[in-house]
Amino acid sequence: MSLFQLAIHFFLQLVVILATCRLVGWFGRRFLGQTQVVMEMVAGVLLGPSLFGLLAPELQGWLFPQKLLIETAGDPVSITHPSMTVLYILAQLGLALYMFLIGLEFNVGLLKGRGTAAALVSGAGIVVPFALGGLLVPMMLSRGDLFADSVTLWTAVLFVGSAMSITAFPMLARILYERGIAKTAMGTLTLAAGSIDDALAWCFLAIVLATFQNNLTAAWITVVGGLAYGLVTMTLGRRLFSAFGTRFARNGNHLTNDMFTGIMLVLAFCAFLTDSIGIYAVFGAFICGAAMPKGKFADVLTERMEMPVTNVLLPFFFVYSGLNTKIGLVNTWDLWIFTFLVCLVAIVGKGVACMLAARVTGEGWRTSAIIGTLMNARGLMELILLNIGLDRGVITRPSSPSW
Amino acid sequence: MSLFQLAIHFFLQLVVILATCRLVGWFGRRFLGQTQVVMEMVAGVLLGPSLFGLLAPELQGWLFPQKLLIETAGDPVSITHPSMTVLYILAQLGLALYMFLIGLEFNVGLLKGRGTAAALVSGAGIVVPFALGGLLVPMMLSRGDLFADSVTLWTAVLFVGSAMSITAFPMLARILYERGIAKTAMGTLTLAAGSIDDALAWCFLAIVLATFQNNLTAAWITVVGGLAYGLVTMTLGRRLFSAFGTRFARNGNHLTNDMFTGIMLVLAFCAFLTDSIGIYAVFGAFICGAAMPKGKFADVLTERMEMPVTNVLLPFFFVYSGLNTKIGLVNTWDLWIFTFLVCLVAIVGKGVACMLAARVTGEGWRTSAIIGTLMNARGLMELILLNIGLDRGVITRPSSPSW
Repeated sequence: MSLFQLAIHFFLQLVVILATCRLVGWFGRRFLGQTQVVMEMVAGVLLGPSLFGLLAPELQGWLFPQKLLIETAGDPVSITHPSMTVLYILAQLGLALYMFLIGLEFNVGLLKGRGTAAALVSGAGIVVPFALGGLLVPMMLSRGDLFADSVTLWTAVLFVGSAMSITAFPMLARILYERGIAKTAMGTLTLAAGSIDDALAWCFLAIVLATFQNNLTAAWITVVGGLAYGLVTMTLGRRLFSAFGTRFARNGNHLTNDMFTGIMLVLAFCAFLTDSIGIYAVFGAFICGAAMPKGKFADVLTERMEMPVTNVLLPFFFVYSGLNTKIGLVNTWDLWIFTFLVCLVAIVGKGVACMLAARVTGEGWRTSAIIGTLMNARGLMELILLNIGLDRGVITRPSSPSW
Repeated sequence: MSLFQLAIHFFLQLVVILATCRLVGWFGRRFLGQTQVVMEMVAGVLLGPSLFGLLAPELQGWLFPQKLLIETAGDPVSITHPSMTVLYILAQLGLALYMFLIGLEFNVGLLKGRGTAAALVSGAGIVVPFALGGLLVPMMLSRGDLFADSVTLWTAVLFVGSAMSITAFPMLARILYERGIAKTAMGTLTLAAGSIDDALAWCFLAIVLATFQNNLTAAWITVVGGLAYGLVTMTLGRRLFSAFGTRFARNGNHLTNDMFTGIMLVLAFCAFLTDSIGIYAVFGAFICGAAMPKGKFADVLTERMEMPVTNVLLPFFFVYSGLNTKIGLVNTWDLWIFTFLVCLVAIVGKGVACMLAARVTGEGWRTSAIIGTLMNARGLMELILLNIGLDRGVITRPSSPSW
């Protein structure tokens, strides 16, 4: 396959991805009362081995090839297919731009006086599912085929705990925006709690990866580097970025190409930096957006990039994740029980904990219940976590003949 | 290099690409009276082996790796580096979206009554440099190291003729828009002539590739398919696409995510189709944009996607091309004479021919001279042509020890 043939193939993939995401999204919005973003995650899974690959394995393998065989003098060598590499990088780019937009809409000002509440909701939402998840780990480890052999009990607890306690912040944000409740007090509180949640979960993940690799220095770099990045960006960075807002206002609320590129440059640098220190571009891009000036500036900037980012680039992330998801791997009754238990503990544990925490901070029962439900927004961050875990070899795929 | 490391590297490349394009662009606009787009093409060359690779070959090779060595049982096998593949696909995506925007601003209505003039300017601008270029070909062939051995005189004439007669339509369009003269009568005439030019040049190229491959069927598919695509899209397609405009107007001039994705879906399909029949997505995307409803609809759609496309995605095309450009390969006096002759014949031949043709259709001398100059907008299409020629093995790289 030459580069030119790859380009043809790419445009075809784009046609299929856009069509599927819209169609599934339309169906979910119309008949299931779901948001577009949740349905896009579903669409990604449908395009993978879980449905498309089940119905038409040859066609699916042709449209989304996973491996490329390189002819050599000896046996052919199998490498990641260039097409997958392209989808992966587009997914990362889309995710970073998307998280930047989420950060851009995140108004720190609304958080004033609610910091304690956010911290409490976030803390409860982590501690409870983390502890409950930890109790499930010994059972999981006893199976022997879910984790890599070298993974210790504590590493496994940290990984499972992170996965079960994490709020999928981008999903939460998207649902709040699609429903139009992002800028309410409740929306801001949940967004704040969700972002604290995520930052902590990333730190846990960093420790997991570090202990697994016997590399405590790397863990410290991630934890301390991540905290330093957040602090510096929200203080010094925020002051520097305000220059964009000043120029924008002085230019009659008109965004120039120079300004736009300057902002994208800052964003790309933040993504590079946070990926490098191991806290991931998802987090870096969000903080970068959160530190940008708000008001008219943020509105115009959002308007200028929102549609291509959410409708064209972001679907690549869901599709890439879906291509790596094979529901058919959960193929025995004990795996199904595990799946059910993990979901139950994660959802109920987090939901009840967050609800009670919100109630303690003075919210009414109804609002508290909604907050507990919203904090249960899952999906995107769990997918990221799993992708990283698979990538680094912490978790393994159960053996399956058809994989 | 894992996929995750590739993502880190990608964000770093993005930082360097955005910074270089803006810096070089600012310099050219400030001190040389150039447009941003011309300077971005220059920036691409500077990031390649012609400057960056000359000054810091190791660093350049690390930042933009061309080849990846795959370890095998025997000798390692060299493949295109995944990073290059990613840059290539992003370049193609950026180019298609960009050409769509150019088409979107292209108002066929303004052309009424000017069709003959556009055809005449276009025809003259092709015939003259094509004929003059043809005269240079025997000299070029006698060198023996510029073309593949199997290339015949006529194939070479067609290739050189196309390269010398082609107006870089996207450059022309960008210059006209940056200078704010795109919607004038002169701007429309040049845009129309330029697009006829390009369509014809693509057909020539198709014939070159086909005769080179001894595949006349492929040539016919391209020529007939390209014409059919253009006609069907501008008639039937245009009528269908008007539904987007109607819905947009009925929705209070508000573009929804569903509409936007629908449009992107059509665009991706057009890009796939035209790439498949060999007339290239550049052309397909332009025609697709030209067939879209105009007025407020086109304005809002442009506003929603212009900035990320022109400032973030399009630079990938220039950089990818620049990475494959090595000015140091023109390293002997006879190659420099060829270069000078080719430029002279292409520029003067096309300029004078277009000027006279415009004068004949009734424009004043001054306007005619400007049209002759504008039709000489070069760069992007020539780069595409060269990339394709290299890709398909029509032309060869002169031997050079440092390549």
